[in-house]
Amino acid sequence: MPATLPTGPQRAGAPAVDPCLSRVREHVLALPESGIVEVMNYGLARGGVIPMWAGEGDLPTPAFIRHAAARALEAGETFYTWQRGLPELRAALARYIARLYGVAEDPERFFVTGSGMQAIQVAFTMALGPGEELLLPSPTWPNAAAAALKIGAVPVPVPFDYGPSGFTFDHDRLERAVTARTRAIFVNTPANPTGFVASHDDLRAILALARRHGLWIIADEIYGRFFYGEGGRAPSFRDVMAEDDHILFVQTFSKNWAMTGWRIGWLEAPPALGQVIENLIQYSTSGVAAFMQRGAIAALEEGEPFVAEQVARARAGRDLVCAALAATGRVDLVPPAGAFYLFFGVTGETDVRRLALRLVDEAQVGLAPGTAFGPGGDGFLRLCFARGEAQLSEVARRLSGWLAGERREAP
Amino acid sequence: MPATLPTGPQRAGAPAVDPCLSRVREHVLALPESGIVEVMNYGLARGGVIPMWAGEGDLPTPAFIRHAAARALEAGETFYTWQRGLPELRAALARYIARLYGVAEDPERFFVTGSGMQAIQVAFTMALGPGEELLLPSPTWPNAAAAALKIGAVPVPVPFDYGPSGFTFDHDRLERAVTARTRAIFVNTPANPTGFVASHDDLRAILALARRHGLWIIADEIYGRFFYGEGGRAPSFRDVMAEDDHILFVQTFSKNWAMTGWRIGWLEAPPALGQVIENLIQYSTSGVAAFMQRGAIAALEEGEPFVAEQVARARAGRDLVCAALAATGRVDLVPPAGAFYLFFGVTGETDVRRLALRLVDEAQVGLAPGTAFGPGGDGFLRLCFARGEAQLSEVARRLSGWLAGERREAP
Repeated sequence: MPATLPTGPQRAGAPAVDPCLSRVREHVLALPESGIVEVMNYGLARGGVIPMWAGEGDLPTPAFIRHAAARALEAGETFYTWQRGLPELRAALARYIARLYGVAEDPERFFVTGSGMQAIQVAFTMALGPGEELLLPSPTWPNAAAAALKIGAVPVPVPFDYGPSGFTFDHDRLERAVTARTRAIFVNTPANPTGFVASHDDLRAILALARRHGLWIIADEIYGRFFYGEGGRAPSFRDVMAEDDHILFVQTFSKNWAMTGWRIGWLEAPPALGQVIENLIQYSTSGVAAFMQRGAIAALEEGEPFVAEQVARARAGRDLVCAALAATGRVDLVPPAGAFYLFFGVTGETDVRRLALRLVDEAQVGLAPGTAFGPGGDGFLRLCFARGEAQLSEVARRLSGWLAGERREAP
Repeated sequence: MPATLPTGPQRAGAPAVDPCLSRVREHVLALPESGIVEVMNYGLARGGVIPMWAGEGDLPTPAFIRHAAARALEAGETFYTWQRGLPELRAALARYIARLYGVAEDPERFFVTGSGMQAIQVAFTMALGPGEELLLPSPTWPNAAAAALKIGAVPVPVPFDYGPSGFTFDHDRLERAVTARTRAIFVNTPANPTGFVASHDDLRAILALARRHGLWIIADEIYGRFFYGEGGRAPSFRDVMAEDDHILFVQTFSKNWAMTGWRIGWLEAPPALGQVIENLIQYSTSGVAAFMQRGAIAALEEGEPFVAEQVARARAGRDLVCAALAATGRVDLVPPAGAFYLFFGVTGETDVRRLALRLVDEAQVGLAPGTAFGPGGDGFLRLCFARGEAQLSEVARRLSGWLAGERREAP
């Protein structure tokens, strides 16, 4: 809505604007509404629709994590706490990353944030001033571009290539997109919505680009555990970086531990930035509830069986959905190498925004239109397969039926 | 620390700067560290010090609020939720404000935020662009100025008058501080740290100023219940405003319900701003945990006895501390009309930053130096009296002893 509102002084004959809106800064008024929300609102108003539009699984947070938070609440951990996070949680994060990536980690590199979104916002605020540019391989999760717009920076989408093996980086295109105002590149791997996973060669090439041009890398490896290739986890910048590379890792508890609703994440950054990050947290939300952090510690320390179960479940979901849709012969899909989304096209359908709305009515399935993910997303639909087998089978049945021409009416 | 770091390119002979810091945007590097933290760190490293520096009471969140959140956790309310807040909480907020202020309220005016600090950040982001000015009656809580600096805006402190009746607004000085770039005025009443409470005449004058110059009013009335005059609550902009005035109310659950550590607050704003505020929340933290919001609903619906007890306790604390210190004949104090801080001077002591450090060592009492609160704060110390009688009596005993010249050594 706000993007279409006049933001300057009204001229005669212009539509009436609430005077409040005319006093809101232009770059804020111009922030886009999420393109997923249109379909969600349309679908929620109908009922009977299976919602596969959001980036979350169907399992609640496991009990051992909920109980750890509840115990801390019961113990009265309700006072102000460290702006950088509980020392115990920062230490647990260092141990977790060290275990997962086989590198030594210093707890002083870890900063607890009120969501992965806030970690991104803090990273962008350090790296990007008004008018400065952020390279964003595209299509991508729309909140990254919006977070840059929010601080007056300029997101520069750089489309992936798309071919028979799916989405791939075009490193020359990335290089050509660098200008004198470029300050950072946002690298999400495994990627939402495409399922793309950067290889070590890709990461080395990005690192070389960043070094050549003095750019920050904002590394979003939140789906690093959801990887369907060899090695148990996706390739990471940690595997190829040097200690003095300028990389800010944004992270979240949302996906691995089914904690989407908690709003807790972390930023990993060089300790030299500690006071700056502390200030940015202090002046935006002033920390994260200590009792939530106790839940996060439990997730890191006792959560491996749950993560393994989640990843296995997503892998099975991916196989089920890909096999069922491929069998229709009416879709364009490459099984994703990582994350938990299938990003696919439907033969003969080009207007995916309208298609997503039609699928709500005609197949009772809610998918996110690729157009919500920026340039390169047109022609695709996103389906979240971090779901149980029964629901995914029903979704596959409905979509296959619809694709076979058997259009269904709402029950 | 960051304020003193060179932010431009290094010249020969300049001290070495971590290369990471040289790539952080200047206005972010220049964000001030809280001036309270220096004394806190000094005091915490010693032990035996009674900490009166922070703006929080000594009671944990009451059990009925903690239990409401724990029940929601147990019930698995751990998924993404409404960006504007649970509809039940928004409705409860409307009822609460209607009850307290005797005005009709629309739930669509209420937006749940991840702290009062975030409510301020959202309000400032709408109202202030880079280089635009915010009037701040001063001394004041330092985070307001820092939140403006964080988005590249310019806080303009406008000192209060100080006389025999304590701090008062100088409305002419406020008027003279308005420039072509002024966009908003931040009005905190009852005020931290001064205890100043704006009269209805003050509020009318500010409102007239804002109307004359087309300014937003950011109204911080979070201490509105902590009022020691007649009427049960402090005068509010709600008592004098018209429906079309441009006022954004920033609020928090922290003080009334002893929920400082939860990080949950709200913004009250014209519903026309709804989508803009939703976007700003979406792209900064993406909402507040639903289980925390269940605690907040309990606070609003069942919390009146606790609030009454808290306010009575603060009033008793104020009377105790004011009487004990006044009896020494060595302090300059006016009993505060609201909030829960005593802001007082010590005869013959001018360097309050040093004085606060000395009091840690010599009286084992931790106070915040007035210099932490901006222009007009020099010469004062802040003492939080939202504490139990035993602790306040001991603090009064230590300070009175010290003031009487009986300097104490650490035990």
